[in-house]
Amino acid sequence: MRSSIAILMRLAVLVFVGLVMVSAVEAADRDKLLSEPGVYGTFAAYSLDADWVKQDQPARIAQLTTLKGVVEQHREKLAIDIYLLRGLSDHADVLFRVHATELRETQQFLLDLQGSLFGKHLIGSTIFSGLTKKLNYVPGMPDNLKAELKIPGEPGPKPYVIVIPIRKDADWWSLPQEQRSAMMQEHTEAALPYSKTVKRKLYHATGLDDLDFITYFETSRLEDFQSLILALEKVKEFRHNRRFGHPTLLGTVRSLDEIIEVLAQ
Amino acid sequence: MRSSIAILMRLAVLVFVGLVMVSAVEAADRDKLLSEPGVYGTFAAYSLDADWVKQDQPARIAQLTTLKGVVEQHREKLAIDIYLLRGLSDHADVLFRVHATELRETQQFLLDLQGSLFGKHLIGSTIFSGLTKKLNYVPGMPDNLKAELKIPGEPGPKPYVIVIPIRKDADWWSLPQEQRSAMMQEHTEAALPYSKTVKRKLYHATGLDDLDFITYFETSRLEDFQSLILALEKVKEFRHNRRFGHPTLLGTVRSLDEIIEVLAQ
Amino acid sequence: MRSSIAILMRLAVLVFVGLVMVSAVEAADRDKLLSEPGVYGTFAAYSLDADWVKQDQPARIAQLTTLKGVVEQHREKLAIDIYLLRGLSDHADVLFRVHATELRETQQFLLDLQGSLFGKHLIGSTIFSGLTKKLNYVPGMPDNLKAELKIPGEPGPKPYVIVIPIRKDADWWSLPQEQRSAMMQEHTEAALPYSKTVKRKLYHATGLDDLDFITYFETSRLEDFQSLILALEKVKEFRHNRRFGHPTLLGTVRSLDEIIEVLAQ
Amino acid sequence: MRSSIAILMRLAVLVFVGLVMVSAVEAADRDKLLSEPGVYGTFAAYSLDADWVKQDQPARIAQLTTLKGVVEQHREKLAIDIYLLRGLSDHADVLFRVHATELRETQQFLLDLQGSLFGKHLIGSTIFSGLTKKLNYVPGMPDNLKAELKIPGEPGPKPYVIVIPIRKDADWWSLPQEQRSAMMQEHTEAALPYSKTVKRKLYHATGLDDLDFITYFETSRLEDFQSLILALEKVKEFRHNRRFGHPTLLGTVRSLDEIIEVLAQ
Amino acid sequence: MRSSIAILMRLAVLVFVGLVMVSAVEAADRDKLLSEPGVYGTFAAYSLDADWVKQDQPARIAQLTTLKGVVEQHREKLAIDIYLLRGLSDHADVLFRVHATELRETQQFLLDLQGSLFGKHLIGSTIFSGLTKKLNYVPGMPDNLKAELKIPGEPGPKPYVIVIPIRKDADWWSLPQEQRSAMMQEHTEAALPYSKTVKRKLYHATGLDDLDFITYFETSRLEDFQSLILALEKVKEFRHNRRFGHPTLLGTVRSLDEIIEVLAQ
Repeated sequence: MRSSIAILMRLAVLVFVGLVMVSAVEAADRDKLLSEPGVYGTFAAYSLDADWVKQDQPARIAQLTTLKGVVEQHREKLAIDIYLLRGLSDHADVLFRVHATELRETQQFLLDLQGSLFGKHLIGSTIFSGLTKKLNYVPGMPDNLKAELKIPGEPGPKPYVIVIPIRKDADWWSLPQEQRSAMMQEHTEAALPYSKTVKRKLYHATGLDDLDFITYFETSRLEDFQSLILALEKVKEFRHNRRFGHPTLLGTVRSLDEIIEVLAQ
Repeated sequence: MRSSIAILMRLAVLVFVGLVMVSAVEAADRDKLLSEPGVYGTFAAYSLDADWVKQDQPARIAQLTTLKGVVEQHREKLAIDIYLLRGLSDHADVLFRVHATELRETQQFLLDLQGSLFGKHLIGSTIFSGLTKKLNYVPGMPDNLKAELKIPGEPGPKPYVIVIPIRKDADWWSLPQEQRSAMMQEHTEAALPYSKTVKRKLYHATGLDDLDFITYFETSRLEDFQSLILALEKVKEFRHNRRFGHPTLLGTVRSLDEIIEVLAQ
Repeated sequence: MRSSIAILMRLAVLVFVGLVMVSAVEAADRDKLLSEPGVYGTFAAYSLDADWVKQDQPARIAQLTTLKGVVEQHREKLAIDIYLLRGLSDHADVLFRVHATELRETQQFLLDLQGSLFGKHLIGSTIFSGLTKKLNYVPGMPDNLKAELKIPGEPGPKPYVIVIPIRKDADWWSLPQEQRSAMMQEHTEAALPYSKTVKRKLYHATGLDDLDFITYFETSRLEDFQSLILALEKVKEFRHNRRFGHPTLLGTVRSLDEIIEVLAQ
Repeated sequence: MRSSIAILMRLAVLVFVGLVMVSAVEAADRDKLLSEPGVYGTFAAYSLDADWVKQDQPARIAQLTTLKGVVEQHREKLAIDIYLLRGLSDHADVLFRVHATELRETQQFLLDLQGSLFGKHLIGSTIFSGLTKKLNYVPGMPDNLKAELKIPGEPGPKPYVIVIPIRKDADWWSLPQEQRSAMMQEHTEAALPYSKTVKRKLYHATGLDDLDFITYFETSRLEDFQSLILALEKVKEFRHNRRFGHPTLLGTVRSLDEIIEVLAQ
Repeated sequence: MRSSIAILMRLAVLVFVGLVMVSAVEAADRDKLLSEPGVYGTFAAYSLDADWVKQDQPARIAQLTTLKGVVEQHREKLAIDIYLLRGLSDHADVLFRVHATELRETQQFLLDLQGSLFGKHLIGSTIFSGLTKKLNYVPGMPDNLKAELKIPGEPGPKPYVIVIPIRKDADWWSLPQEQRSAMMQEHTEAALPYSKTVKRKLYHATGLDDLDFITYFETSRLEDFQSLILALEKVKEFRHNRRFGHPTLLGTVRSLDEIIEVLAQ
C-alpha cells in the first residue's frame, strides 16, 4: 500500500512543480564545466529550518516550485548538481554542487536561491569552493600508469556521493617539488585499483577557504570507496594532512525532481 | 502509589499505540543483519525539540504512533534498535541503531522517520555509519585465544549501551601490517577477560565519516566495562587513537514500546 | 528593607512548596552512598530556558513544587545534592550530583525531573558520571602519610563547590604501574596540607564519558583551594593531563529549599 | 542636529532613571577593593537578547532603571565596573567587573542582576574569576626596577579596556622556582616602558576556571598597548602560554549612566 | 525577462532609499585613511536574522534606508566599505570594513548601525580590528625589490575580496630580528609576481583580538590570488603560522547601493 501512495504523491508533486515555466534558454555546456580545468566548483550545504515541516503540503510544493525556477534560470551559465544528505550526514539536509567559470555567477545563483520562497527556509551550514586544474602528471610517471588513469570508469548510476575537504600541513608545502611528486605518484598508484568503481574529482581550494583541497567521490560500491580511503591512508602523503574531512559529507545523488519529491512529503 | 499510576499510564499508552496497523510483512532477517559481515550499521542520535514537552499527552501519543508505524514499515529490510540516552548523555535523547545491506535503505528509513509527525520534533544531533567485516584473525594468533573468543557471552539482559567512535592517527596506518597485527593481538588479549560480561561489536567507518571505527558495547555490569576500557588504554595500540569517544554515547537498551512509554509521559 | 522583603518572599515560597506531599519512605542511606566504593556519581548541569523568567511568580512556584516532588520521590534510592552555578559559572545555572548504586536509577530520576513541569524549562548542558572506588593506597606509602589522610577535615559549612573533569594522556596509561604509583604518591603529598580545609572526592569515569576522572571539591576557603590546585600543577603527574577542566564548574552548595527560593524570585 | 537629539535623549534617560531610590548606604571601600590583595575579581560578559531591541524606548528605560537599582543595592559590599564591548568585540555587549572579598557576594549580585527586569534580557556569554595577590617581587630584582614599577601611571581617562585570560602549560609549573622568577623578571623589564600609559592588573584564576591568570588593561593609547603585548610575546615566558586570549575582550570604559544611555537608544 | 524585472526593482529601491537626507558634511579623507599608517581597520561581519526575509519588501526597504542613513552620518570621520559574503562564505552575509583614527569612532558607528531599524536584524558573527603601520622595509632589502613593490597594481575593478586572520606561533616572536627579517624578505619576494593583480593590505592586530595580523586582498583574478597563497605557503615564514584563516572570509566588493538592492529583494 505504501508504494501506491508514494506513486500518487509523486505524480501530484511532479504535476504541480512541472507547471513552472522554463525559459527556452540553452543549458550551460555542462560537460565542459564538469571536465575542463579553470572551473570553480562550490559546495553549499543547507539544512531546512524547523518551520519547513510545520507547513502543509501545498505550501511546501508552492515553495519547491521556486527552487525549480531558480535552478532553471541559472542553467544557462552554471552546472548545478544536488544531493540528499539528510539521513546519512548530520551536517545538513541538502547539498548543491555548482560549477562556474566565474565565482560571481555562483554567488548570484545562491543569492537567488536564498531569496526565493523556498530559500527562506534554508539555513546555510557550510560552503566552500575550489578550482579545477589541469591534471599535472608527475614527471617521470610511467606511461602505463598514465594510460590506466585514462581508462573511463564503469558506466551506470553511482548513487553515493562523498565530499572530503583536506588541509595539508606546513611541512608539505615546504618540501621540495620532487619529494611531493614522488609521494603523489605513490598516492596515485594506491588509488588506481579503485578507479573503475569510484569516480573522483579534485578541486584546489587554497586561499578560498580554510582548506587546500576538496575531494569529491561518486560510487555505487561504498565498500570499494572505503578500501580506497584505507589505501590512501597508508601512503606517506597522508601524514601531511592536517585535516581530512571534518566534515565528511555523505549523501546520495538525486535529480532535482527527486529532491523536490522527498522534501514535499 | 507512583508505580500504580505508572502501570495505568503504561496500559493507556500501549492501548493507543497498539492500534497501529502492522502490515503482515516478514521482519528482516534480524539475526543475519546483526551477525554477518558486509552490513552497514548507522547510529543516529536525536534530541526532542522544546515544543515536544509542551504538547498535551494525547497529542504526544498520536505522534508516537507514527514513530511505531515508521519502524514497522521498515522492519522488512532493516534491523532497527533504539536506546534511551536522556538522563545519561548530554548529546541526545534517543539513539537509533540501524543495520542494512544498503545504506540507501537506512537513509529512506530516517527520511520517513524525520518526515513523520513524531519526526517533526526531532533535532538531529549526530549520525555516523560503519561497515561490519569478517573477523580478521591476526596471523599467528594462538588457537586457544581464537577458541576463547568464540565462547558466547553470558546470557541475560544487558541494559547498558555505550558507543565510542575512534579515529586512528596517521602513524597507525603507515605501520607495516605485522606491527599492527601484533598490537591488535595484544589488544585482543587485554579485552579477553571481559568478553563474557561485555558484548562488543565493531564497525569500520573510514571514509564514511570523520572516523575509522565505531565500537559498540552492551553490558549489565558497567564496572566490567570500565575495567575493559582501562585495560585497552594500557596497550600500545591505544597510543594510535587520535580520537577516542568525543562523543561517548551512554544510554540504556529499550524496546520501542518502552521508549514510547517514556516519551509519552 | 531589602532583607525584610527577602524574608517575606522566603516564607511565601516555603509555605507554597512545603505543601508537597512527601511519602513517608525512608531516605536512601545517604551516608553509605556518599562514602562507599562502587557507587555511581552523576553530575548533571542544566540552564533554565528563556521562558522561565518570563513567567509570573505563582507559575514558577507551582513548577518548583514539582522539582521538590521529584527529588523527594527518589530519595529512597538516591543521594541527591544540588548546587547553584548561576553567577559563578557560564556553563549552567544549577548542578545536580546524584549518587546511586545503579546508573539506571539515576537515569530514571533525571527522566522524571526533565518530564516534570519544572523540568520543561531545563536545558541540559552537561552530564557525566563516574564510579567511586576503594582508596588504593600506593604500595610502600609511608604509614604516617596514610594516617594523615585519615584525619577528618575541619567541620563546618563548606559553601563553595568545584568540579573538574580530567582526561589523562595515552602516555600515562602506558607507564608501568610502579611509575604511576610513585607519581601518585608525590601528588598525594602535595595535596596533604590542604586536606583539612578542602574536601575532595574522586570518581572514575573512564569509558562512561570522554573523561578518566571527575574531581569534586568543597571548601569555605577558595584561596586554599587555589593553592591546592597550584601545588598539584607542580607535580609530574600533572603533565599527563590531556584535559583538566574544560569545563571547570564553580558554584555554591545549596539546600533544595534555597535553590527553590532563588529560582522563585 | 544629531548631537542635539542625542543631548535631549540623554536628559530624558537620566531623568527617568535618576528617579531610582538610592539607599543612603556607604559605598564599599572601592579603593581598597581595587588595590588590596585577597580580593576576588569576576568578569561577567553578557549579550542582550533579540527581544531587547524590539521593545519601545519607555519599556527599555523602565528596565534599565532596575539595572541601576541592582547596582546601587550592592555598592555597599562590592566594587562594580561596567564596560561596553558591543561594536568592538564579538563575544558580548556589556562586561561587568566585580570586586568582592567573598565570591558569594558577587554571585548574589549577578543573581539579582539576572533576576531583574533588565536581566531577563541578558544572555550570559562568559564569566571567570580570579584572586588578587600581593605583588611578589622576584628575589634579586634590582632596586631601580622595583622603584620604577612604583611610579604611578599618567593620570587622565583611559577609555579602552582589554581583558586577556591566560593558561600556562604544564612545563611552566614544573620548572624550578628560580627559573620561573628569572623569566618573570625578563617579562617585567619588557613591560616597563609601557607602564605609564597602559595600566595593568593581574588576577590569579587557577582552579576557579579553565585559566591560570586574567590580565586586565586600561589605556588611552591602544598603540602602546599593542607594543606592550608585542614586547611580552618576545620574552621566554610567553612560550609557556598554552592559551593567551580566546577570548580577548576589547571594549570601552563607561559609567553606569553612559551604558544606560547607550542601551536606551 | 529576468533582467528587466531586476532593472525595475533596482530603480524602485534606489528611489525609495535615495530620499534619505544626506547632511552636507565633508566625507572623511578616505584616501588618507586608506593609505596612511596609524589607522585602525575593523572588520565586522553580520548575518541577517530569520525574520529579515519574512518581512514584505516595503518594510525591508524602509529599514535599508536607515542603513544608508547611518553610513552617511559617519562618513565625516570614517572610511566605510561594505562587502557581500552571502553565497560565498558560510560565516556571515555582509562584511563592513571601517577605517578610523580612533577605535571609539568605529564603535560608535557600529552601535548606531546595530541600533538602527536595519540593525535590529543583524546578528554579529565576527569582529576584529588591526592597526596599519608604516611599511618597514627589511634592512638590506635590495633596491630593485623596493622599487618593484612601489609599482602600482593594475587599474580596474577588483570584484573579489578575501580576509585572512593570522596568528604567529611563540617561536616566531622569540626569533632574533635578523632571522625574522630574512624570512620576511623571502615572503616578499614570493609575493612579488602577484602584486599587479592582487591588491594586499596588512593590519597589525596583536592584543586587540586573538590574532597577530589581518591580511586583506582584492582581486579580479582569483586564480592569481590562489597562486599567491600557494607561493606564500612554501616559504619558511609560513611554518610559524599557528592560525591562518579560520575563518577565511570570501566575498565580493559592493557599493552601498548594490548591497541595499540585493538585500531588498
